[in-house]
Amino acid sequence: MSNNRHPNYPHPTLLIRRVRAQVNIARMAAKARASGVRFRPHFKTHQSVEVGEWFRAEGVEAITVSNLQMARQFADAGWRDITIALPLNPAAAAEYNALAARIDRLGLIVDEVDALRELDRQLSRAVDLWIEIDCGYPRSGVAWDDTPGFTAMAEAARSSQHFQLRGLLSHAGQSYACRSREEILAVYADAQGRLTRTHSALEQAGHRGLEISFGDTPCCSVAADFAGLNEIRPGNFVYYDLMQAAIGSCEIDDIAAAVACPVLSRHPERGELILQGGAVHLSKEVLKTAEGPIYGRICELRPDGWSAPLPGVSLTRLSQEHGVVQGPADWIAQQLPGRCLAVLPVHACLAANLLRKSDNTFLLID
Amino acid sequence: MSNNRHPNYPHPTLLIRRVRAQVNIARMAAKARASGVRFRPHFKTHQSVEVGEWFRAEGVEAITVSNLQMARQFADAGWRDITIALPLNPAAAAEYNALAARIDRLGLIVDEVDALRELDRQLSRAVDLWIEIDCGYPRSGVAWDDTPGFTAMAEAARSSQHFQLRGLLSHAGQSYACRSREEILAVYADAQGRLTRTHSALEQAGHRGLEISFGDTPCCSVAADFAGLNEIRPGNFVYYDLMQAAIGSCEIDDIAAAVACPVLSRHPERGELILQGGAVHLSKEVLKTAEGPIYGRICELRPDGWSAPLPGVSLTRLSQEHGVVQGPADWIAQQLPGRCLAVLPVHACLAANLLRKSDNTFLLID
Repeated sequence: MSNNRHPNYPHPTLLIRRVRAQVNIARMAAKARASGVRFRPHFKTHQSVEVGEWFRAEGVEAITVSNLQMARQFADAGWRDITIALPLNPAAAAEYNALAARIDRLGLIVDEVDALRELDRQLSRAVDLWIEIDCGYPRSGVAWDDTPGFTAMAEAARSSQHFQLRGLLSHAGQSYACRSREEILAVYADAQGRLTRTHSALEQAGHRGLEISFGDTPCCSVAADFAGLNEIRPGNFVYYDLMQAAIGSCEIDDIAAAVACPVLSRHPERGELILQGGAVHLSKEVLKTAEGPIYGRICELRPDGWSAPLPGVSLTRLSQEHGVVQGPADWIAQQLPGRCLAVLPVHACLAANLLRKSDNTFLLID
Repeated sequence: MSNNRHPNYPHPTLLIRRVRAQVNIARMAAKARASGVRFRPHFKTHQSVEVGEWFRAEGVEAITVSNLQMARQFADAGWRDITIALPLNPAAAAEYNALAARIDRLGLIVDEVDALRELDRQLSRAVDLWIEIDCGYPRSGVAWDDTPGFTAMAEAARSSQHFQLRGLLSHAGQSYACRSREEILAVYADAQGRLTRTHSALEQAGHRGLEISFGDTPCCSVAADFAGLNEIRPGNFVYYDLMQAAIGSCEIDDIAAAVACPVLSRHPERGELILQGGAVHLSKEVLKTAEGPIYGRICELRPDGWSAPLPGVSLTRLSQEHGVVQGPADWIAQQLPGRCLAVLPVHACLAANLLRKSDNTFLLID
């Protein structure tokens, strides 16, 4: 696009600032190297074989995905060490066996002894196992202070036929409630301390040599180093988004993904503009701001990307295909139907998931 | 599935009760026939060629879609009369021309004179045109009482080279704020009255023989008949969902789509269960209920579909791949990892859009 002074697209189109995304990757890779931890990025954010190669160029060999289909996609693209960071499902045994047969290391996570035993009976291949620990974000995972619970899990893993216990894995999703770097650092210190205690308790129970794998973009973006960890698994940082900027993980200028949306209709008399850009392009992820809930911020498209978000303009309502932008009447009157604006999404993972799958173009710019 | 007493799926899977969907279609088709209006269903809900054939079996020949990609999909499947119910985009002229060349009638909608003129200059084929009217739902559309606005649009259409003005088209999206059949009927009466007045004003200005095309599932589901209209375009009613049940458009038992989601992890001590069923399967469409915001209701899977929603159980948090279900501790303790529960989605259109595109199976049951 670099020779086109007025980029335009006939449909909502995911735009990626390649250089910015590569800088985001390089920065996280360098911090992981400096701390001597394995960088196993979560590929659920981009789900793109092409973007995956940018990670490979930074020396990444191990990846995280969130489901079996994604694991197969990246196995097809030559990735040999894949962790599926979703509690293992005994009903998917046949699919795990098929996948384990064609890569070097398949990693699964578990928080249920019964599920572990049931799947072990059906596995035909060696599989790495990580015990998922809830370090303060109550979703899946054994609570970090439930010593009987995680010890029983480790025993079950050690007595299994096919699982090799690698360590503890945790996602500190509580960082998403933060609204400053200081708050994120406090969450990180707390989570890291809890996981260290869980790890020590397992060591005392005779489970030695276990690793600690740690996730979440806010903590990994802001932490000065990763002392005490063996592996990090952030994903969103490759693109970042408005939610991450609100949390304090990044600056707005670090955001590497936007959706180009055609202007369809102008209503300056009510201070509104209609875009083709709805829930099927951006998702209905909402960000609460001082001015009310928003679904995106609006920027001007530029040949090399997009402008800073326009002040006083935001995407305030979404239906399936339409987006309603509120802004100053004079600005709205200047927009042209058919010309695109760039929307910074609230949640880049969900926008990328929606747009990668459609026949909307995925364009790399800058 | 009818011979399998315990249906199960290894991944989140969209399930369609075929007989129920066909009953929903037949009921709407019969009401349209009884009123002598054209039934031009919106196919954005299902986006499925197979489901489209169920409409054809009811005599449907004209359809509505919400974007060009969908229009091409259904043109490929043999549909010859397609309205794209999103304001026309002058930047997509080449795509409209290509589509108009291979179907009998392409219909576009407009609410901007400049956009109409700009596209007219670039069209090479005859195209039907509908003036979009805002009858009380401020999204796109010329306001129903903006006589200079809609008259100017009609003049521009009449003096265009390629457009044939068919009539007025409106989506009464304000019905989504209703919470009873009575409220929906009041919205319908109001909207129908407004469109009749807009139509009369155009007649008085010399624009005779225009049709009125009317959308939205709540009004079309509840209205006794469609007197005064020429065409209806509901879409969601083929599946219905929790939102429609809350609005008053349908009963829970009319819902024909659910997502089968594997149980991953149980936490009875905190009254929670984790499903594989997140924003990439169900969307983040939320429904406000007396008990708080929910993303779905939980049913037991049955060989012929699913049970009624389990009382006191609902899907209260969603991340990309995980869903958190809250319910009674004893019920949670009885669930088995790897066994599926059925989730009734808040918004079936968005769930179907997400799951039709993945390699999750689309299964027809009953």
